[in-house]
Amino acid sequence: MEKKIRVGVAGYGVIGQRLADGVALQGDMELVGVADVMPTLSVRALKEKGMPYRLFAASVEGKAALEGAGIPISGMLEDLVQQVDIMLDATSAGIGAKNKLLYEKYGKHAIFQGGEKNDVANVFFHGYANFEKGLGVDFLKLTSCNTTGLIRAVDCIDRAVGVEKVAITIIRRVADPGDYHRGLTNALQIDKAPSHQALDLMTIMPHVEATGILIHTPVTHGHIITVVLTPKQDISVKDALEIFEKHPRIRVVSIGEGFLGNASLFRYARDLGNPRGDMYEIAVWSDSVVKSGRDLMFAINIPQESVVIPENIDAIRSSMKMQLTRETGTAETNKYLRIGTWKKTV
Amino acid sequence: MEKKIRVGVAGYGVIGQRLADGVALQGDMELVGVADVMPTLSVRALKEKGMPYRLFAASVEGKAALEGAGIPISGMLEDLVQQVDIMLDATSAGIGAKNKLLYEKYGKHAIFQGGEKNDVANVFFHGYANFEKGLGVDFLKLTSCNTTGLIRAVDCIDRAVGVEKVAITIIRRVADPGDYHRGLTNALQIDKAPSHQALDLMTIMPHVEATGILIHTPVTHGHIITVVLTPKQDISVKDALEIFEKHPRIRVVSIGEGFLGNASLFRYARDLGNPRGDMYEIAVWSDSVVKSGRDLMFAINIPQESVVIPENIDAIRSSMKMQLTRETGTAETNKYLRIGTWKKTV
Amino acid sequence: MEKKIRVGVAGYGVIGQRLADGVALQGDMELVGVADVMPTLSVRALKEKGMPYRLFAASVEGKAALEGAGIPISGMLEDLVQQVDIMLDATSAGIGAKNKLLYEKYGKHAIFQGGEKNDVANVFFHGYANFEKGLGVDFLKLTSCNTTGLIRAVDCIDRAVGVEKVAITIIRRVADPGDYHRGLTNALQIDKAPSHQALDLMTIMPHVEATGILIHTPVTHGHIITVVLTPKQDISVKDALEIFEKHPRIRVVSIGEGFLGNASLFRYARDLGNPRGDMYEIAVWSDSVVKSGRDLMFAINIPQESVVIPENIDAIRSSMKMQLTRETGTAETNKYLRIGTWKKTV
Amino acid sequence: MEKKIRVGVAGYGVIGQRLADGVALQGDMELVGVADVMPTLSVRALKEKGMPYRLFAASVEGKAALEGAGIPISGMLEDLVQQVDIMLDATSAGIGAKNKLLYEKYGKHAIFQGGEKNDVANVFFHGYANFEKGLGVDFLKLTSCNTTGLIRAVDCIDRAVGVEKVAITIIRRVADPGDYHRGLTNALQIDKAPSHQALDLMTIMPHVEATGILIHTPVTHGHIITVVLTPKQDISVKDALEIFEKHPRIRVVSIGEGFLGNASLFRYARDLGNPRGDMYEIAVWSDSVVKSGRDLMFAINIPQESVVIPENIDAIRSSMKMQLTRETGTAETNKYLRIGTWKKTV
Repeated sequence: MEKKIRVGVAGYGVIGQRLADGVALQGDMELVGVADVMPTLSVRALKEKGMPYRLFAASVEGKAALEGAGIPISGMLEDLVQQVDIMLDATSAGIGAKNKLLYEKYGKHAIFQGGEKNDVANVFFHGYANFEKGLGVDFLKLTSCNTTGLIRAVDCIDRAVGVEKVAITIIRRVADPGDYHRGLTNALQIDKAPSHQALDLMTIMPHVEATGILIHTPVTHGHIITVVLTPKQDISVKDALEIFEKHPRIRVVSIGEGFLGNASLFRYARDLGNPRGDMYEIAVWSDSVVKSGRDLMFAINIPQESVVIPENIDAIRSSMKMQLTRETGTAETNKYLRIGTWKKTV
Repeated sequence: MEKKIRVGVAGYGVIGQRLADGVALQGDMELVGVADVMPTLSVRALKEKGMPYRLFAASVEGKAALEGAGIPISGMLEDLVQQVDIMLDATSAGIGAKNKLLYEKYGKHAIFQGGEKNDVANVFFHGYANFEKGLGVDFLKLTSCNTTGLIRAVDCIDRAVGVEKVAITIIRRVADPGDYHRGLTNALQIDKAPSHQALDLMTIMPHVEATGILIHTPVTHGHIITVVLTPKQDISVKDALEIFEKHPRIRVVSIGEGFLGNASLFRYARDLGNPRGDMYEIAVWSDSVVKSGRDLMFAINIPQESVVIPENIDAIRSSMKMQLTRETGTAETNKYLRIGTWKKTV
Repeated sequence: MEKKIRVGVAGYGVIGQRLADGVALQGDMELVGVADVMPTLSVRALKEKGMPYRLFAASVEGKAALEGAGIPISGMLEDLVQQVDIMLDATSAGIGAKNKLLYEKYGKHAIFQGGEKNDVANVFFHGYANFEKGLGVDFLKLTSCNTTGLIRAVDCIDRAVGVEKVAITIIRRVADPGDYHRGLTNALQIDKAPSHQALDLMTIMPHVEATGILIHTPVTHGHIITVVLTPKQDISVKDALEIFEKHPRIRVVSIGEGFLGNASLFRYARDLGNPRGDMYEIAVWSDSVVKSGRDLMFAINIPQESVVIPENIDAIRSSMKMQLTRETGTAETNKYLRIGTWKKTV
Repeated sequence: MEKKIRVGVAGYGVIGQRLADGVALQGDMELVGVADVMPTLSVRALKEKGMPYRLFAASVEGKAALEGAGIPISGMLEDLVQQVDIMLDATSAGIGAKNKLLYEKYGKHAIFQGGEKNDVANVFFHGYANFEKGLGVDFLKLTSCNTTGLIRAVDCIDRAVGVEKVAITIIRRVADPGDYHRGLTNALQIDKAPSHQALDLMTIMPHVEATGILIHTPVTHGHIITVVLTPKQDISVKDALEIFEKHPRIRVVSIGEGFLGNASLFRYARDLGNPRGDMYEIAVWSDSVVKSGRDLMFAINIPQESVVIPENIDAIRSSMKMQLTRETGTAETNKYLRIGTWKKTV
């Protein structure tokens, strides 16, 4: 790779700052800067760390607010856009569609997040499920955190034995650690079925029938999804676990080892010393995998703050044609993010 | 009914006090008394209410503790047993098996709760699924709260179109309101699959294949179960809803009406003026019922503190042969508990 | 009392429905009806109960929405106002000020809740602290739930030995059971100090200096307030407890009895069979009362949904001059709500 | 420093692993190894990280369990003790007293944590309050997390204007992130007063009178303590804030900046990139500092997992006489932990 791909990040929130960190780790990419509009805690932390990333103001009012809080600014979002090859847009839902005009103005590629409407992009993208569909495409939209993790698990079974249909139950964490603008107290909340994650899965994997129910729960450390999957060919629990084990972005864990739930995985990631206690991998509980007739049922854990980072990096690789196949593209992302290095025996 | 069936309740806790209240409402039963071993809050409340039920001490130490707290005692558990035709045993798991010796000594029938081992009883009982199996049987064991509610929903579909298999996800409330001896804080917890509720369903309904995953959640107001059900004959969402609507112990509710989750149902039961804010019915969310191929998927709410009361009363009717069919037995229970009176079409 | 005072309730929510129930229990009052604008769960429950109270629509749109949901309407809010002597306004904050125009139009008295601004009323009222100030006054505003409970405790110490100052820490429940429009998940939240409750206390009891800090916590079953109180004359723990014991609207409880926290009191009220599991009394933990120098420190529990009901009834008595002193006014309220009947020494 | 002080850590749990990391950062100390008895998630994470620290087995059964889980062992705890100058004992409460026999056998110094009984040590220690009392002393016991943070705040006010008495309300997080063995669900829990933290403060600062009430809350990200402090000389809010600002281990934060509660501080520490999202400093909310007469009231945040680490390092310095004054000892700890480096303007 002679020249590094220059990347900018719009929106330095929960996802944006993790995208910035992920890009900064890629040997073949250069993080040009990040943009935001408010002196949020994340932006204040950036300042306390000594501004390792250049910060651009995403609006005139934002510039005033940031400078008023003593945060050094390197220019406006429009300046950032001109200096990059591709933007990762992690702004609040709906802002990405507005920013797209700016990206188009300067002929830059962009990757949007799951909160935007599908028509913001030409391709609805997942690194493992349809890498090749994104090749050279200007505007890609990533799946949301639940769908990203879910597709990892369904796609690898699909490639092995085929998947006819899935019925999912999403036990959703309702807020991220530190959120005060949303929350549930002593209540489960149900959404109208089918859940959008089931519909999104069908958009990415149109040969699979999917439905699902989503229940919000008052926790912050990761979604859990149970999957009832009807395979085309029968598959044993043992074979399914082997397939999961081989996937670089899936961890197979067990209750016996001490992984009692979503909070155990958060604690484990903290104890690993991962920045922010983040984890890129989803987890499958080996103790959860059961059969009912031909159906396979299992539970996965989705670390909602960080799970989409690798697939976003994959999207840069696909959109900028840095690699041309899912195997080479995802492998390069995994290498720089050190994903799968802990799987010594695989 | 010339002579009322005399009933005693052992264990005046979450379930026991609701059993006592439920029996007291039956026109053809007489609540002789309740037994406990400690001046718990429930026992103290009984005293503050003026002892509407006679209290018996379940042990010598218990008698001392109760009297020490100024609670009037009407005798020992053994005295109570001699005065009744049948005991409802709602003691802590494992105690029922010990109490059974006392019930046998005096030749009395008894109903045990889901926490006891299956072999404590001759028949594992559910009012709607196998009423006739309990007829005249000395010792019956009830299904646990989740299984009781789940079987109501599966059984009525089964009687209409047949059920081949179910895969359930139990989103379990981890504690009851007021519990301090157990709890989860900001964590989901997974149990080894398959869940016992799936296994229990197969014991009661041996012609159905069942599996399931259980996730504990940090809430107190009701379990939610999602059910992926494979019927023998195809059934539409509309037809399924009609079947649920007709069941006296099932409420069909919707998000649009304001039933956003388990806490809405708890609030509604309080606003109805039901004692303790209890509800005997499970709820099915009409907005949750979806299809995937032939499979039917839906979500139900289980009010864990009170849901088993009607089936316990059914069990008395079956064990004592007060009625001889599920239709007449459950109808009599429903009448006295005023279940289904709110249904226009019932 | 020859003729019963006719009372209407505007807003049939958490507070409104409890006010209606409380008024309905008063032998010398007549509940004419309640008003609301939406087919909320509380209104739907009213219908399922068979409309024990007449319901009036508070707006034209509300009438359509209620009738659309099949709820029978007895007229408009303006009709209700004309039929009463006094209105209890428990509408959402800010609506009361608008409704006041209607009350003035027909020359009716009204009681507003803590959420309204102070200038909506002529007197900021508390049944025990300043009953006489409300005598014959058209418009009274009640203190909020925390302040109402807090003043009960501070006022009775003040009458015994005088109170120089208090510093309070409010550990606030952030939502009511069944709330989905607000909530916190795994977070404590701090408000800017001093808390309004401290300021409100000084408005009602201007001779006391007060300050305080409020922390929101993710629970639903009652606030806990710790009070650091500087008395004018020294007072022992024992004497303080005796004063609390004598107050009809204060329960003295202990950890040893099983009252481990706010959820224990909620459970106890449910087990008492109180409608909705409500409790009118605040609780003081006897195990929490300690001294530091002359200062007295203790913790109280505030059942936020129901604590203000008695003081609202007191306010009717004061405003309508049904009784002329705090002793007689509060005693009459207590009699009909059966407050204090459980106290042996009262 | 010619020769580095050799340090071992017993117990590689929540506190132990943070102690190990803290010691490893000290330029004048050498972390010889850590000891544990079980293949916990923390130990498994150590292995996944490639064993940056040598692990010793604390029992024969532990050795078998660890080796059975494939964790490499460098010897037994007794081996570790022989290779160090001083042990940091962060084992479960009560184990430290047993381990002390081993430390005595080899004539090694040791630092115990707040969970041990006071008589395990010769001095109850706090880096800022009584550094000099620990000089050269074999066995020191640290204050618990709440007391450690509280004393930082009280001690610096005491050194400025004197403190006569404090009354504290501890709003305690009930579990750490990832805990499944303890938890509360929708409940506040009160402890018998006075809280041990108030008593402990008086042991360390015997010239101050202290009392307090502790309430457990269902959250994991930090305790909040409100302090009502009676100073010997009057002090203004502004002067108090300046004193807090100058303390290296205290952060002054505000709601306006976005620090809405304990979860904001956890998020901020994660965004700073601190390992595990830890923070060594307590926080004081500037918006919480108020006066009532001469009394000063304010709220502090205690990051329970990491707050005691600096004072533990201070304890090594005092016990081993690495520095001879609180100023030089705490400054050296702060330098290596990079505490206070963010305070550019101080």
